[in-house]
Amino acid sequence: MNKILVIGSVALDTIATPQAMSKEVLGGSATYFSVSASFFSDVNLVATIGKDFPVKHKRLIKSFGVDLRGLETKKGKTFRWEGSYVDDLNCAKTIDTQLNVFADFKPVIPREYKKSPYVFLANIDPDLQLFILKNLKGQRFIGCDSMNHWIQSKGKALKKTIRKTSAIFLNDTEARLFSGESNIIKAGKYLLSLGPRFAIIKRGEYGAALFCKNASALLIPAYPIEDVCDPTGAGDTFAGGFMGYIAKTNKTDAKTVRNALAYGATMASFTVEDFSVNRFLRLNKKDIEGRRRKFAELMRV
Amino acid sequence: MNKILVIGSVALDTIATPQAMSKEVLGGSATYFSVSASFFSDVNLVATIGKDFPVKHKRLIKSFGVDLRGLETKKGKTFRWEGSYVDDLNCAKTIDTQLNVFADFKPVIPREYKKSPYVFLANIDPDLQLFILKNLKGQRFIGCDSMNHWIQSKGKALKKTIRKTSAIFLNDTEARLFSGESNIIKAGKYLLSLGPRFAIIKRGEYGAALFCKNASALLIPAYPIEDVCDPTGAGDTFAGGFMGYIAKTNKTDAKTVRNALAYGATMASFTVEDFSVNRFLRLNKKDIEGRRRKFAELMRV
Repeated sequence: MNKILVIGSVALDTIATPQAMSKEVLGGSATYFSVSASFFSDVNLVATIGKDFPVKHKRLIKSFGVDLRGLETKKGKTFRWEGSYVDDLNCAKTIDTQLNVFADFKPVIPREYKKSPYVFLANIDPDLQLFILKNLKGQRFIGCDSMNHWIQSKGKALKKTIRKTSAIFLNDTEARLFSGESNIIKAGKYLLSLGPRFAIIKRGEYGAALFCKNASALLIPAYPIEDVCDPTGAGDTFAGGFMGYIAKTNKTDAKTVRNALAYGATMASFTVEDFSVNRFLRLNKKDIEGRRRKFAELMRV
Repeated sequence: MNKILVIGSVALDTIATPQAMSKEVLGGSATYFSVSASFFSDVNLVATIGKDFPVKHKRLIKSFGVDLRGLETKKGKTFRWEGSYVDDLNCAKTIDTQLNVFADFKPVIPREYKKSPYVFLANIDPDLQLFILKNLKGQRFIGCDSMNHWIQSKGKALKKTIRKTSAIFLNDTEARLFSGESNIIKAGKYLLSLGPRFAIIKRGEYGAALFCKNASALLIPAYPIEDVCDPTGAGDTFAGGFMGYIAKTNKTDAKTVRNALAYGATMASFTVEDFSVNRFLRLNKKDIEGRRRKFAELMRV
């Protein structure tokens, strides 16, 4: 099995939804990505946490088989994010962000991870993403995520990062901001023009689009969930399912990519059914295969 | 071939888009529906126009084989709508509406149309829709559209209408307003609870969802168009493709409905490529089949 290395955040999230409030639960881009990818591949996680990080959360991530040798504990407090979906379940309103130890995150990649064939650069400072890439060697497939903040403040560094990746994952707002194009095809073409082989635009409850060099685009709806509990982490879970499947098969042909997209969407649909990564605690491969089949059936026209 | 009877508006539209301005072009819900459905079935149109309605527009509708015996010319001016997509290509801002002869529209259904097996009640006053249904007999399939204005001002009459139809077509904003549910599955279930066998929620550039009694839901993206000229009429064109295909096959089994949904989306994707119904003047069945195949391929995961 091919290992995936993910570098990103491990956080404590406080989330308000129309139905409930969830305090200091396990969150962070690297967490969601790892847990999701772990259903397909082995995952090595690189992130930083503070001394206040609950042991039970560490155990929880480990329970998915995620290798935590790269999870560094620093003096100080863990990165915290507080968000609200009370007004709109599809769009988080950030109430508070406390970077804490994440502010000085300088990822140290364990030597044994440096030749990881699969790497996912979760949403962190593009300068750090570039720094990480300089410390890696011989990758087969590098995925990369980002956000509005970096697009606006470090667009140039982000472009440099993207040039070195195989796949860029952005949501539609980010893709539009970055490309200056409101049309999804134009935005996709712009992202491909920066160099990567694949550009994946995530559209939340509306699904996702995948653009490839020298192949037709793919466009899928999201698997509809009647009772959405908390959409936090859906994007990273999507990327985890996508890259987990690519790593598992060790291929990037058209059929594999179609499957990867479907598994990404399938995994994202589970995330939103509970807070944090809780839904994955009661998930098995049969559930995943069942929903993945239903998903294909849903749009078989 | 089974004929479809459509009752709705024939209008003169003035439309501003980020690229261009289009003055007093042929528009109206019944126009878009008829032209789209005409590629699959024979269509009989019932609407009202003023004496100022250009002969060339009448000829244009006729050129698609649409039967205009039910197009009544009244003293006065034709219904006019002025809209702008300058700020948002996905959402029309109404600049001006002049109902003119449409204000007193009291549809007279020609006797030979009364037993039409397929009927589409385009977006008009629900009381009129009910009045029309009282004058019809022995239908196999009745489709119905509406809008926010009627949902808010005549919700009760609209519910009565929907109870008598086979399929309700609403866009997502309308479905949410009507159901009080922001979740698409819940909104779909609500619409089905009013009685129809099918509830179709149109999501603009994000595609469409179809909910059925006793069958799984379908969810499709929109066929992506790189150069959207004018989205006006996409919803009615969608309904025209959907119902045109249902009428052509004279069936409503699961496979037919899946095809109908795909043809609806395919036809809608053509509309937005030009102003008015212009795109259909240079469209043939081969083009439709080609795009319909591409559409299925786009989301084959």
